[in-house]
Amino acid sequence: MGKINVSIIGASGYTGGELLRLLISHPNINIQQITSSSYYGKFAHKAHPNLRKATNLKFCAVDELEKTDLLFLCTPHGESMKKMNEFINIADKIIDLSGDFRLNDVKEFEKWYKQTHVNPELLNKFVYGIPELHRDKMKDAKYISSAGCNATTTILGLYPLYKNGLVEIDRTVVEVKVGTSEGGKKSSFATHHPERTGSLRSYKPTGHRHAAEIIQELSFNEKIQIHFSATSTDMVRGTLATSHVFLKEDLTEKDIWQIYRQAYGDEPFIRIIKEKEGNYRYPDPKLCIGTNYCDIGFERDPYSNRLVVISAIDNLMKGAAGQALQAFNIMFGFDETLGLEFTGLYPI
Amino acid sequence: MGKINVSIIGASGYTGGELLRLLISHPNINIQQITSSSYYGKFAHKAHPNLRKATNLKFCAVDELEKTDLLFLCTPHGESMKKMNEFINIADKIIDLSGDFRLNDVKEFEKWYKQTHVNPELLNKFVYGIPELHRDKMKDAKYISSAGCNATTTILGLYPLYKNGLVEIDRTVVEVKVGTSEGGKKSSFATHHPERTGSLRSYKPTGHRHAAEIIQELSFNEKIQIHFSATSTDMVRGTLATSHVFLKEDLTEKDIWQIYRQAYGDEPFIRIIKEKEGNYRYPDPKLCIGTNYCDIGFERDPYSNRLVVISAIDNLMKGAAGQALQAFNIMFGFDETLGLEFTGLYPI
Amino acid sequence: MGKINVSIIGASGYTGGELLRLLISHPNINIQQITSSSYYGKFAHKAHPNLRKATNLKFCAVDELEKTDLLFLCTPHGESMKKMNEFINIADKIIDLSGDFRLNDVKEFEKWYKQTHVNPELLNKFVYGIPELHRDKMKDAKYISSAGCNATTTILGLYPLYKNGLVEIDRTVVEVKVGTSEGGKKSSFATHHPERTGSLRSYKPTGHRHAAEIIQELSFNEKIQIHFSATSTDMVRGTLATSHVFLKEDLTEKDIWQIYRQAYGDEPFIRIIKEKEGNYRYPDPKLCIGTNYCDIGFERDPYSNRLVVISAIDNLMKGAAGQALQAFNIMFGFDETLGLEFTGLYPI
Amino acid sequence: MGKINVSIIGASGYTGGELLRLLISHPNINIQQITSSSYYGKFAHKAHPNLRKATNLKFCAVDELEKTDLLFLCTPHGESMKKMNEFINIADKIIDLSGDFRLNDVKEFEKWYKQTHVNPELLNKFVYGIPELHRDKMKDAKYISSAGCNATTTILGLYPLYKNGLVEIDRTVVEVKVGTSEGGKKSSFATHHPERTGSLRSYKPTGHRHAAEIIQELSFNEKIQIHFSATSTDMVRGTLATSHVFLKEDLTEKDIWQIYRQAYGDEPFIRIIKEKEGNYRYPDPKLCIGTNYCDIGFERDPYSNRLVVISAIDNLMKGAAGQALQAFNIMFGFDETLGLEFTGLYPI
Repeated sequence: MGKINVSIIGASGYTGGELLRLLISHPNINIQQITSSSYYGKFAHKAHPNLRKATNLKFCAVDELEKTDLLFLCTPHGESMKKMNEFINIADKIIDLSGDFRLNDVKEFEKWYKQTHVNPELLNKFVYGIPELHRDKMKDAKYISSAGCNATTTILGLYPLYKNGLVEIDRTVVEVKVGTSEGGKKSSFATHHPERTGSLRSYKPTGHRHAAEIIQELSFNEKIQIHFSATSTDMVRGTLATSHVFLKEDLTEKDIWQIYRQAYGDEPFIRIIKEKEGNYRYPDPKLCIGTNYCDIGFERDPYSNRLVVISAIDNLMKGAAGQALQAFNIMFGFDETLGLEFTGLYPI
Repeated sequence: MGKINVSIIGASGYTGGELLRLLISHPNINIQQITSSSYYGKFAHKAHPNLRKATNLKFCAVDELEKTDLLFLCTPHGESMKKMNEFINIADKIIDLSGDFRLNDVKEFEKWYKQTHVNPELLNKFVYGIPELHRDKMKDAKYISSAGCNATTTILGLYPLYKNGLVEIDRTVVEVKVGTSEGGKKSSFATHHPERTGSLRSYKPTGHRHAAEIIQELSFNEKIQIHFSATSTDMVRGTLATSHVFLKEDLTEKDIWQIYRQAYGDEPFIRIIKEKEGNYRYPDPKLCIGTNYCDIGFERDPYSNRLVVISAIDNLMKGAAGQALQAFNIMFGFDETLGLEFTGLYPI
Repeated sequence: MGKINVSIIGASGYTGGELLRLLISHPNINIQQITSSSYYGKFAHKAHPNLRKATNLKFCAVDELEKTDLLFLCTPHGESMKKMNEFINIADKIIDLSGDFRLNDVKEFEKWYKQTHVNPELLNKFVYGIPELHRDKMKDAKYISSAGCNATTTILGLYPLYKNGLVEIDRTVVEVKVGTSEGGKKSSFATHHPERTGSLRSYKPTGHRHAAEIIQELSFNEKIQIHFSATSTDMVRGTLATSHVFLKEDLTEKDIWQIYRQAYGDEPFIRIIKEKEGNYRYPDPKLCIGTNYCDIGFERDPYSNRLVVISAIDNLMKGAAGQALQAFNIMFGFDETLGLEFTGLYPI
Repeated sequence: MGKINVSIIGASGYTGGELLRLLISHPNINIQQITSSSYYGKFAHKAHPNLRKATNLKFCAVDELEKTDLLFLCTPHGESMKKMNEFINIADKIIDLSGDFRLNDVKEFEKWYKQTHVNPELLNKFVYGIPELHRDKMKDAKYISSAGCNATTTILGLYPLYKNGLVEIDRTVVEVKVGTSEGGKKSSFATHHPERTGSLRSYKPTGHRHAAEIIQELSFNEKIQIHFSATSTDMVRGTLATSHVFLKEDLTEKDIWQIYRQAYGDEPFIRIIKEKEGNYRYPDPKLCIGTNYCDIGFERDPYSNRLVVISAIDNLMKGAAGQALQAFNIMFGFDETLGLEFTGLYPI
């Protein structure tokens, strides 16, 4: 098979840059065009200094886009739904990294996003972008909506439990800790270094949009409830979800281990982390930096029916660009790990 | 009234040093002796470099202690119960900052600490050391057991709700984020900078001892359950508790605000933080660094009966030395804020 | 003596906030007014969240200022020279924390600041604001120009050597590491957390304005040369100057120690740090956070005539607000340490 | 050509782990054995948690080593000279990452290392391991001694200037800022997180061993002098050298640019960074994390003959494992960039 031609819309942001970095070293991809309004006409490395010496690509405008095989959309939330009808004329296949097409149900979208969806008829055409849940559908998909970073971390951590009907469906509390790159590249007083560094900021104690994705993906026989909060930490990359679920039956840690092994034993990007000792006996997002791994661990509360599940990713990788490339590999029948082999740095 | 004579046992650790710093500038205290085995005979500022130019005190040994008015115990957990009978001969009054005498019930102690209590008959003689809950008892107390840092953060955040019987007693989930000074001054590979920095370490997902204190102090008419986890972050000082409680009735944020105002309106060290905008609209432990404040905020979940309560302290201050000095002031009838006036730094 | 009335112009920035914090707890000061354009009419704690519960002051406008005893100017560089003629009608005494009146020579100002000075005739009326150098002049001064933070760190580190004519006057290289609060409260993409954190940014390898102050203050018999660079680190507060000077004669470390003792032995805010072991055997700015100390250490190069001098301060304290208050105390005959007793936190 | 067999001695430390990570993904290398005394018999990922799922190698003992093509030595300083005679029986070729064979002159070794060299006759058989300086010799070399991290950063920054005889040879001052991974994997109170984080520690103001390498490699016609200091910052990885050199003639920045272009224009791992604007207009070590790049920039002082040269690397990569692998590629005639293609992360 020849190389697949792809273009990236919104390639000067953090997610777009991470995707660009991955695509540059992917053996089967030809990057056709990359767009940016703020960096129009400039070299890619002006926006992404890590790409110095790595590429001579320049940014163009959206209206200069030529036909291509696949479009990656790294547009701000709310943008892709407005222009999706144009985009699907440019490319047969689309991977949208924004939040616009993640929810199947327009009512849920409007409940959580507090805005009207301008392209609701397309909602059902998008496959929700977590390969570990929807790999089969992805193989034939035209449109994929990459999952939210916090949603990915939580869903991957809890999927085997919900899939197997093991937890009380209305009690789960999820506390996510996130890095500052989640907020994107736009600066403000909120992200001013002396304000933001050393801070533990409760940025979304309730009402976080990613909760809607989690509910959608973990509701099997009946609709579940997720009590979700997010706290911003001082790290740049990384998402750590600490999920408190309450088991219907008294499962041992060994039982739970087997459930995870069964669900994820063959997954190339899931590592089950459960060690008796050592500094990294639970998942730690810093070990995921730059990788496409989702690390998952757990601990049974000896004094109640609680199980604490801990899952970690790099929000820009497994939570955005890496996951999108994994989906791309599936769509085109490539080895799923192509371009995603980086195993992470230690120490870091 | 003349100055009160006090001595500190275990004054070379982080908590002991913080206490020493406070006592040096307290107008009504005379520091009689400070003990340390590892720094025996050395100047205090060899252990606490911030005290250069601030004191010429030297460390002595425990068996060199003279009679004094009050002893502060900054001994490692498990030590004070062994030697308490000696200590009460040295001083009429004692404030123990370790965990040995926090729990009233020896069975609870042995359940959570996994060790035998060697001095259980004294357990009931200690007043649990959170002034906001036990101020009246403290006025006549001989012995006070300072509360654990994570327990203090959680209890102060939730006390008005439990006291007023407003929450479902078995559903609360508390997720505490802690700084590395909680682990004390002893180094190990776990605290080695390249290992520890940038890390989000789930150090106690279940079974944390401080849960026992929380249960004890928040059980009013019946015994409650607390689902408690602790995650270590990259900060040195600070504790942030994110508590998810489920309300029995549908209270508005205004209702809740009034409940907190009523409980804490006159408290010198509680700040209720609830603003519509700004970087610090929720409590942030970095603003508590060096202060004795506990900052408390909250947010109602619009989609369920959940209330998220956020509380923050400096673990070495309100969570240890500051709280102990506040208790001291109460015991001796001084203004509660004496020596605790520092309002914190911004930016930091 | 009654309380001195003071007002602060530009009190909503980082320096203004730090000064306000200090003045609030100063026993002999009455804060009359504080100005801010961006926070006009709001409470001080809206700009400075650490001052919650500490003050009920509100910001007013500059044109609402009433007569007062002393004005502190925390205006942006370039502002105070424009309005100084108004300010001196409002108050008899002025302490200007900006850079406008630090240089005596208008030509030097225009060389380093690359702008015209609009009020050059006042330049000579200002005393340069480092108390350790100009204490006597300050006692009778009407106008004081507080020194730059990097200049303060460097000058205090090198003053005894230059004063005594011990170093080659054209070879000194000074490498200053600075925290991000030096840049002030205004956010930009340069200070965006994911950009700025973890960064070591060479922000001014040559041409730094503070070099002019250093040259002015350390030139005794002939004009010296200082090869100055500044690198921004990840810390919020703190300045560390590593100064490489070349000795004219072969002095031992003991000789040098005596020179510093002679110069600074009675100084309340200078600590000479030279220990054989320990984590803080050289000055470290983190131990200065919140304090008015300048810590100074040194080491002789055994293989050349180089002496490395290391000096550290908190840029917002000894490098700005603390130094200004120390000067104030001198001007009004108060104990120099009044309101500046905080000894710093450890660990931090 | 078939795969080259290699073994690593001391593979459980930070440098050994980084090297192992690189070798695992090198297409032409077969990792035969890895040794560790502390992790004997355990999986590699027990020492290096980033290698989970990446390798099933286990650590063996040094006396279990079999013959191999090349040995990488990641032994502590002082170890390899003791055992080198054994090692050269195990492998024809050796790359030593320790400091034992970097200096050609035994007297210099003993001056800077303050110890006797036990194998001085081998000193001249080692090629100093910076490819940009000694590529030709490396092609036929049997033994290579990898350069020190601080030395690499400084030498690469200054080499074109010294090679071309452009600087005053006794005036250069080099101020290096280093991350905490330079100190290795062994923990101590000096590296305890609350002590080390936020610290700017002058750990070697004079007498740093790497100065000897710099002097050796930059002395062309006559022996030069380097005034070297190192300050430890809060970062884990990274070295930034700020070098102050004094030019013999008045070169413009354009002249200097051409000198660097000429020296490094074809170098795959040198990036000359000199931009007019942007957050990364000078080299910043955080952009080098995980890469083999050395980024170099400079600025002419308009008021003197000083040139400030700024160079940055990842100390574990270009300063250790990456540089060693680059040398390996040269020794065996492979493309120099093989296994070193990672371009770094942004943001990070």
